[in-house]
Amino acid sequence: MNEDKLEPLEKRPIGVFDSGVGGLTVAKEIMRQIPNESIIYFGDTARVPYGSKSKETVTRFSRQIVRFLQAHDVKTIVVACNTASAYALEELENECDIPVIGVVKPGAKAAAEVTRNGRIGVIATEATIGSKIYNQYIKELTPDAMIYGKACPLFVPLVEEGLWQDPVTEEIARRYLMELIDCDIDTLILGCTHYPLIRSTLGRIMGNNVTLVNPAYETARELRQMLERKGLLNRETPGLGANQYQFYVSDAAEKFKQFANSIIKYGILSAKLVNIEDY
Amino acid sequence: MNEDKLEPLEKRPIGVFDSGVGGLTVAKEIMRQIPNESIIYFGDTARVPYGSKSKETVTRFSRQIVRFLQAHDVKTIVVACNTASAYALEELENECDIPVIGVVKPGAKAAAEVTRNGRIGVIATEATIGSKIYNQYIKELTPDAMIYGKACPLFVPLVEEGLWQDPVTEEIARRYLMELIDCDIDTLILGCTHYPLIRSTLGRIMGNNVTLVNPAYETARELRQMLERKGLLNRETPGLGANQYQFYVSDAAEKFKQFANSIIKYGILSAKLVNIEDY
Repeated sequence: MNEDKLEPLEKRPIGVFDSGVGGLTVAKEIMRQIPNESIIYFGDTARVPYGSKSKETVTRFSRQIVRFLQAHDVKTIVVACNTASAYALEELENECDIPVIGVVKPGAKAAAEVTRNGRIGVIATEATIGSKIYNQYIKELTPDAMIYGKACPLFVPLVEEGLWQDPVTEEIARRYLMELIDCDIDTLILGCTHYPLIRSTLGRIMGNNVTLVNPAYETARELRQMLERKGLLNRETPGLGANQYQFYVSDAAEKFKQFANSIIKYGILSAKLVNIEDY
Repeated sequence: MNEDKLEPLEKRPIGVFDSGVGGLTVAKEIMRQIPNESIIYFGDTARVPYGSKSKETVTRFSRQIVRFLQAHDVKTIVVACNTASAYALEELENECDIPVIGVVKPGAKAAAEVTRNGRIGVIATEATIGSKIYNQYIKELTPDAMIYGKACPLFVPLVEEGLWQDPVTEEIARRYLMELIDCDIDTLILGCTHYPLIRSTLGRIMGNNVTLVNPAYETARELRQMLERKGLLNRETPGLGANQYQFYVSDAAEKFKQFANSIIKYGILSAKLVNIEDY
């Protein structure tokens, strides 16, 4: 490695990764809450989705991506995918010499703080629900909480088809959420990065008495605190032309760019293709 | 390779592959139409789906799978995935020293034979529709045909969620098929291996005057003819305990087995896990 090239630690970028485009909702929150930071985003569009796959496979994929990000001198890694956070975070934390944070813990913490009646719902992929990871983290904070999980596998395809406000999405959401309504929850964790995009539909069905927790927002907040605590926060605004946000994908860069631009207001200049299986 | 182990050509298995479980509808037709044949099936469950990915990526994945199947001494390869057939068949045919057949050509041929008014609809993944491969094959057979393609990205998740007979699937199907009905087609190709599973919904919407073409059926027929022509048809019934049907996947073998058993009546004894990126 060329030592001359290395920036001081706090100026190095934050690595953010997801199975595809969903993690952009997390990247967007980081851009908004800590605007001085540079980001290297990786979306595993060749192997998306992760939510129906096994722990072993998701962990193998995540390790390859972490190697890719570390080769780009990131100062910390944000696992901006609930499934990868649920399945692989512990392994990645153990194997990395830089801080790694996921989206599950911050979401769980916020829900534990927000609930009044101690009844919390979690909607997420099959993998995340099956892992019971939200239950585990919430119970560590409030042992008496009751947690009700529901896998919602159709939400991601419905969001990606653009049906954010649509009677079909509403009907499917009613079916998925019915049992959570019956459980009298007062807090609902949107445990998959796509779900904040149908937040208004979910909110309408759950009603005004249920607080929706968006882990993307909580993760950016926790990231900021961690960087501050470790002296890694970038205090200077990056200069013009500093290439502050860089996007990499494992497939279909042009399509990624289009979807990404519908989520993030900051112009995404380009997305570069990486053969992630080589890492 | 151990020469002693090699069977006579006609006794070797047929390799069948797909991005996941969908190709089982093709394997099932092969079992039904040529019951003496042995099959090695590979489902790329770690990287499913293919239908929203690029030609380059789908071709790279397909090449790895072909190497895996050839390492198992198959006598021919059936690309039981419309997207892989659309994107990678030509490359695979050029690179393989054994016959490779896809599902697109047989489906196109059947549609060209069946249509009376020369107006043919194709429903498939974004990738298959974007490739215009059905158009190309049909035009080679009947240059005057009019072909209308429609990508239906929600059908695969709806089928995999088990909503084969459901008002939501009916509503989505009505939206997708409306423009094909307006085009006055008399033939509709089910250009994705999952679609025959919602055949009755599709048939109800299209009405009695539209013939549905199932490429799985046509492919098994063409495979049989090809094997006969090349002297590769197995004339003997495999003995008991011959392990006639073998299933391999790149992820989540147990889940594959469960879904597979809902499609194929022959008991699937086991599905073995393969790290396909190593091929």
